[in-house]
Amino acid sequence: MRLYGYNLSGNCLKIWWTARHLGKPVEWIETDLLKGEHRTPEFLARNPAGQVPLVEFDDGRMLSQSNAVCLYLAEGSALIPADAFERAQMMQWLFWEQYSHEPALAVARGNIILRGATIETLDPALIQRCNGVLDLMEHELSSRPFFVGNTPTLADLSIVAYTRLCPDAGFRLENWPAVSRWIARVEDSFDLSGP
Amino acid sequence: MRLYGYNLSGNCLKIWWTARHLGKPVEWIETDLLKGEHRTPEFLARNPAGQVPLVEFDDGRMLSQSNAVCLYLAEGSALIPADAFERAQMMQWLFWEQYSHEPALAVARGNIILRGATIETLDPALIQRCNGVLDLMEHELSSRPFFVGNTPTLADLSIVAYTRLCPDAGFRLENWPAVSRWIARVEDSFDLSGP
Repeated sequence: MRLYGYNLSGNCLKIWWTARHLGKPVEWIETDLLKGEHRTPEFLARNPAGQVPLVEFDDGRMLSQSNAVCLYLAEGSALIPADAFERAQMMQWLFWEQYSHEPALAVARGNIILRGATIETLDPALIQRCNGVLDLMEHELSSRPFFVGNTPTLADLSIVAYTRLCPDAGFRLENWPAVSRWIARVEDSFDLSGP
Repeated sequence: MRLYGYNLSGNCLKIWWTARHLGKPVEWIETDLLKGEHRTPEFLARNPAGQVPLVEFDDGRMLSQSNAVCLYLAEGSALIPADAFERAQMMQWLFWEQYSHEPALAVARGNIILRGATIETLDPALIQRCNGVLDLMEHELSSRPFFVGNTPTLADLSIVAYTRLCPDAGFRLENWPAVSRWIARVEDSFDLSGP
């Protein structure tokens, strides 16, 4: 399969990590968002939503949305809990990641590394949302090792992506010690290097 | 089970519709966001994220995130495709709904019906995102009856929630005829009345 991804995007890295962890061969096709490579007619023919990541399987079928692709790749693996309620809790965290976590931490980082903002000029309301996200994670991870159960699931792999990148936006992870310890546990469980 | 919901929230209605369609008894507990009833110590003890919808099962377990709850309730039903790739496509649309659709259409409507904006004062960038979402849906639904396959799935039930409410924000659905026909098909498939 081929993964159209941008190397600075945590959403794209999630799929890379999941495929590698599961031993599924994947070819990374760098798609530079700053050059508009996700808006060309060729790309829009593959994904009318004009978003990366996009996966193209060997039979030509396409799938987008990072967490949906990870779920598809990981079906039947230990990354998805066998228990129905634990699986539902994992889904809860995957939707929280896309609805609340990524739009805070990834946007703050993107404003700095891609759009010329500085830590001093970030929108205070956005900083407040980022702190709220990290505080909620600190609360959750103070009482258990991973988001769901005692072993890492896709929820951890998904949420860790932009969490470990948030120092790029000036957030000092040492202020959230349970989150920091959780990141170390996830790094021990997966190879989180890039393509 | 008890559903803490706000009657103006499409996210909360999705769960109500899913539970009713599947014949699962559910008690609606109105939680007025304008009065801050999702920020009380009692509510935050149930859901530290301070968000509705929240479902409390009879054994005391909690689950949040609308699409995660619908997936849990619908497991094993015809609302979730049996085919693995169709299931993945449904997941793709569920994540798209929370990442791209709801933050456009629900926010535009919320700004008008809850936060005092008018159609004239809506942020033009937000209007552009809403039009883009509706255009993408028009493109997809021009060639098939539902988002995935030939029968309605949770993707349709989820996406229809804020789509059929977008006239509240001044969007004229007659401009998107395939979307309008799809809404009618979903309304024929489910009882979409409120609690």
